[in-house]
Amino acid sequence: MNYPISQRMASLQPSAIREILKATQDPSIISFAAGNPSSDAFPSGTIRTISDQIFGEEAITALQYSVTEGYTPLRERMKALTESHYGIPRRDFDELIMVSGAQQGIELVTKCLVNEGDTVICEDPSFIGALNTFRSYQANLVGVEMEEDGINIAKLEEALKTQKNVRFLYLIPNFQNPSGITMSFEKRKAVYALAKKYSVLIMEDNPYGDLRYSGTPVPTIKSLDTEGLVIYLGSFSKILSPGLRVGYVLAPRDLLQKVIVAKQCSDVHTTILAQLICEHFLAENDLNAHIAMLCGMYRKKLELMLGEMEKAFHPAVSFTHPEGGLFVWCTLPQGADMMDFCRKAVAQKVAVVPGNAFTMHDSDPTTSFRMNFSTPSDEQIVRGIGILGQLTKQLY
Amino acid sequence: MNYPISQRMASLQPSAIREILKATQDPSIISFAAGNPSSDAFPSGTIRTISDQIFGEEAITALQYSVTEGYTPLRERMKALTESHYGIPRRDFDELIMVSGAQQGIELVTKCLVNEGDTVICEDPSFIGALNTFRSYQANLVGVEMEEDGINIAKLEEALKTQKNVRFLYLIPNFQNPSGITMSFEKRKAVYALAKKYSVLIMEDNPYGDLRYSGTPVPTIKSLDTEGLVIYLGSFSKILSPGLRVGYVLAPRDLLQKVIVAKQCSDVHTTILAQLICEHFLAENDLNAHIAMLCGMYRKKLELMLGEMEKAFHPAVSFTHPEGGLFVWCTLPQGADMMDFCRKAVAQKVAVVPGNAFTMHDSDPTTSFRMNFSTPSDEQIVRGIGILGQLTKQLY
Repeated sequence: MNYPISQRMASLQPSAIREILKATQDPSIISFAAGNPSSDAFPSGTIRTISDQIFGEEAITALQYSVTEGYTPLRERMKALTESHYGIPRRDFDELIMVSGAQQGIELVTKCLVNEGDTVICEDPSFIGALNTFRSYQANLVGVEMEEDGINIAKLEEALKTQKNVRFLYLIPNFQNPSGITMSFEKRKAVYALAKKYSVLIMEDNPYGDLRYSGTPVPTIKSLDTEGLVIYLGSFSKILSPGLRVGYVLAPRDLLQKVIVAKQCSDVHTTILAQLICEHFLAENDLNAHIAMLCGMYRKKLELMLGEMEKAFHPAVSFTHPEGGLFVWCTLPQGADMMDFCRKAVAQKVAVVPGNAFTMHDSDPTTSFRMNFSTPSDEQIVRGIGILGQLTKQLY
Repeated sequence: MNYPISQRMASLQPSAIREILKATQDPSIISFAAGNPSSDAFPSGTIRTISDQIFGEEAITALQYSVTEGYTPLRERMKALTESHYGIPRRDFDELIMVSGAQQGIELVTKCLVNEGDTVICEDPSFIGALNTFRSYQANLVGVEMEEDGINIAKLEEALKTQKNVRFLYLIPNFQNPSGITMSFEKRKAVYALAKKYSVLIMEDNPYGDLRYSGTPVPTIKSLDTEGLVIYLGSFSKILSPGLRVGYVLAPRDLLQKVIVAKQCSDVHTTILAQLICEHFLAENDLNAHIAMLCGMYRKKLELMLGEMEKAFHPAVSFTHPEGGLFVWCTLPQGADMMDFCRKAVAQKVAVVPGNAFTMHDSDPTTSFRMNFSTPSDEQIVRGIGILGQLTKQLY
């Protein structure tokens, strides 16, 4: 039978990264293509103890149906933590709900806000998982170019002026995926002012915010949100465990009421055991110390990768110098055949993600590719960058 | 700000049951309104041991990102189990993926198949969670009346003939929610023949299939599916734990490929720890013995409730005599004010779910209400039915 796929899903393809990752299941391949935390980053022993405690003391809570909004003590803790740790003032109009990873926050908010043909403005390049969700609701994706300190503000205003039915701006202000760029505080204020001026919402996605290895933290856009324009997405994936699938949405209550209805339709509630593990972890451990351990681990890997790239890459190849996160964004000189470069790299058993995975349209021209430093071993980083370096030199 | 809610979500309201359940958080209320498994049904000690074992032996697997399709050993086990335990022949065109509860299966399949205005044909009454998902994709809901042995076949064919763009039939053939009705094998064959004749898919939702307390098991519609027309949804919610949020979809691979793309956008993958717990539970325990324990527990509660209703209810009130599942469906005589009856019941601290929660449209006339017997204690069943019985007598 020819299955009658809906218009919204008909043209949507599996994530390009996912397909590349499948190709990299060959263990002899050095993969810079993933976006996973390091396996050394998980506090497995602590979570084992927590889990045993949960089944000893509150097994029924862990196993029975729960409420859609999320486990109440965890929600209360996250409300306190977004204030104390992330500097977001508590506002009367805001509410916080737990979701099954920030990805679900993106999905549910999009389902609640985007009609077919409505516009979502994104940093260009941007996170493929978010772009695919927007596409799956037939959004008109409009990309605005990135500069060293974040989105180009003049071009953002131009887009806001000319595009119809702009539903929200999708932004990853900290250590952006894929570019590694952090938006300056000046630009965050400018973006918020534009959102206010044009009555447009902002979806602020902050999965990497805690992973800062150098420089000074920049306040979130949500911290500026006196008007109720910012939907803030947080996640336990990069600080505790992505496999648990726990994230949260902090946003105006009037909007979240619809998001909760959408979540009821989607998965009823987030796995309660996973929420209980997050709650216990925060209650019984020093989050700052844990984050400091993660940052120490990733800082070394980032420095190693950047150092090797300086040494091995042809000087005409440029790359970002992120202050945190998981990714470095490399750009071959204009005119280079980036896809051919990526193919040659895989042939030599080194995988990177071609940049057009992150553009608004597959066919948008780009000579960039994304590299991850959190998953490969130090030895793999040295060897893999050496191979890529040789390939950059063959471009000339 | 007036948040610009999408057309698909604008008119969707929170589940009526959910609102009633909120009202029943008052612990002095006897609630027949839930749909939860009994808290005595969870093998908490076993799951505690399993969980400790997982963190001892495969903590990284439990905590790292995983693949969207689900944990491979669990998928393989479910493929074997759907054949050996549920009698569904393995077919080359079928595939099985894990989802975050069967509810997510409903959501993802609907997202992949239903355009605005497309028709979904349902049993009338039907499961509110599914109806709301269909509504959230702006489906045209067409209800077909239920008889004692399942959906009215002549009226189903009439609907198939007259309705445009019918995407699928949504059916709960075993111990249907809310009616408790089981579809006869003859009707299952007739439904499948109609699906074939009209080239329409069937979504067969079977969360309660294992919970049979009397009578003879009836083969699933999926077991008849030589043509690749049936999307079969299974769940661990009623046999192991709903809090874990683990279900599965067994359906033609060509369709599931799109469902996987939709799941990537939705939550990337189902909490891997929850999947590991299900896999270990099945690998290391006797599922049939566990189900026999559950059936023993629920059979007694069902018999108690039906016996009390026979004694206490006015003879003009009819009710179903389910052979399994979690629900009994009661119908007041024509002309009775069902909503008034439900309100009076809550005023006397007994909660049931008004039948219009399960109709295609809120305003459809019904004198029925749904009662659950798995959550209340025996003592609550006796006392609550006594109170409802008095109210039925006041109708005359």
